[in-house]
Amino acid sequence: MAKRVAVVLSGCGVYDGSEIYEAVITLLRLDQAGAVVQCFAPDMQQLHVINHATGEVMEGEERNVLIEAARLARGNIQNLSDADAAEFDAVILPGGFGAAKNLSDFAVNGPDLTVIPSLVAFVQAMREANKPVGLMCIAPAMTGVLFGDGATCTIGNDSGVARAVEATGAIHKNCGVDEVCIDEANKLVTTPAYMLAENIGEAAIGINKLVDAVLAMT
Amino acid sequence: MAKRVAVVLSGCGVYDGSEIYEAVITLLRLDQAGAVVQCFAPDMQQLHVINHATGEVMEGEERNVLIEAARLARGNIQNLSDADAAEFDAVILPGGFGAAKNLSDFAVNGPDLTVIPSLVAFVQAMREANKPVGLMCIAPAMTGVLFGDGATCTIGNDSGVARAVEATGAIHKNCGVDEVCIDEANKLVTTPAYMLAENIGEAAIGINKLVDAVLAMT
Repeated sequence: MAKRVAVVLSGCGVYDGSEIYEAVITLLRLDQAGAVVQCFAPDMQQLHVINHATGEVMEGEERNVLIEAARLARGNIQNLSDADAAEFDAVILPGGFGAAKNLSDFAVNGPDLTVIPSLVAFVQAMREANKPVGLMCIAPAMTGVLFGDGATCTIGNDSGVARAVEATGAIHKNCGVDEVCIDEANKLVTTPAYMLAENIGEAAIGINKLVDAVLAMT
Repeated sequence: MAKRVAVVLSGCGVYDGSEIYEAVITLLRLDQAGAVVQCFAPDMQQLHVINHATGEVMEGEERNVLIEAARLARGNIQNLSDADAAEFDAVILPGGFGAAKNLSDFAVNGPDLTVIPSLVAFVQAMREANKPVGLMCIAPAMTGVLFGDGATCTIGNDSGVARAVEATGAIHKNCGVDEVCIDEANKLVTTPAYMLAENIGEAAIGINKLVDAVLAMT
């Protein structure tokens, strides 16, 4: 039977939403592996909107995370509040600043981050059902909140970010862009992706390994 | 020496800009083939903004094609008006409604379409230099304008769209999602992509073949 995988998005664009290449490479690998995918995103306003051509905040502009993430899902997206762990074998979160600005406030509060309740509820329900979780790029900054103390993850090799991640109770392990960090006990797979990738081909190597490792754990 | 490829985008999202999966698969394949890529988009307002969760126009919302396309390029994008054919070995256009709503007005005017002058100028300069052009999805609807009469292309197998394409002077050839249509004399490669694809994996097969065929012609 086909594996059913939930992919949680946080908008559409590296600086204020989901990192597009990470999301698409994830969806492509899942499809090629025969998995059935459903995308989810929270129905909430983005922290802000970034002009991706200049890197600056677009003052006065407001966008909804779910509506923008729908671009990445070609319209086939559901409210994260409606995600039911019983319907999925695994969940994967691409990165991008949306993971640190919309799904959580790690970009603002660092080790004192909070994670939106709908994501906490869904991931904890998946964990209680012993189902694997994949987090890439900056999304593993949520590990301490989502998994409690002692879960092992990677955000690459940035020592400042790694310290912030460890301050949340997680254990950080340096990891190359072409590698994955696997915490077997917690069924947690992480990879640095665009925390380290210098091009899309590099990002794809680690992301493909993450998808394969998550599917292998189902 | 690395092949230099220009990728022309039309926004970020299938219903009002570039089809995201088509663009990312193109960029990934080009990178994996060792090509050096520069993304371009026109600095102009989108025809409209579509809520991709509902499919409806977002009334009162305005977005700039270049600024939105920058999301797909992680910020590394240039104004299409500045594209210099001397700097590139090939040009590829992903599809999405942006090709028919922003780069051209095919979605509104069908066979009476016009194409924005910056795209006409760049593609014609590439053709005069005998450099290959790749068009996917609905982008081949611009073939008659960009290549004049008698160039062969595909938009898949929709007879209505095919008739409109033929009315512009192009020759249409039905083509499967996993195939490419190659006009050797015009150095034009086309593939249906999401005109026919039912999932991202299907789209990738034809798009990868298009990228490979375009690079082989350089």
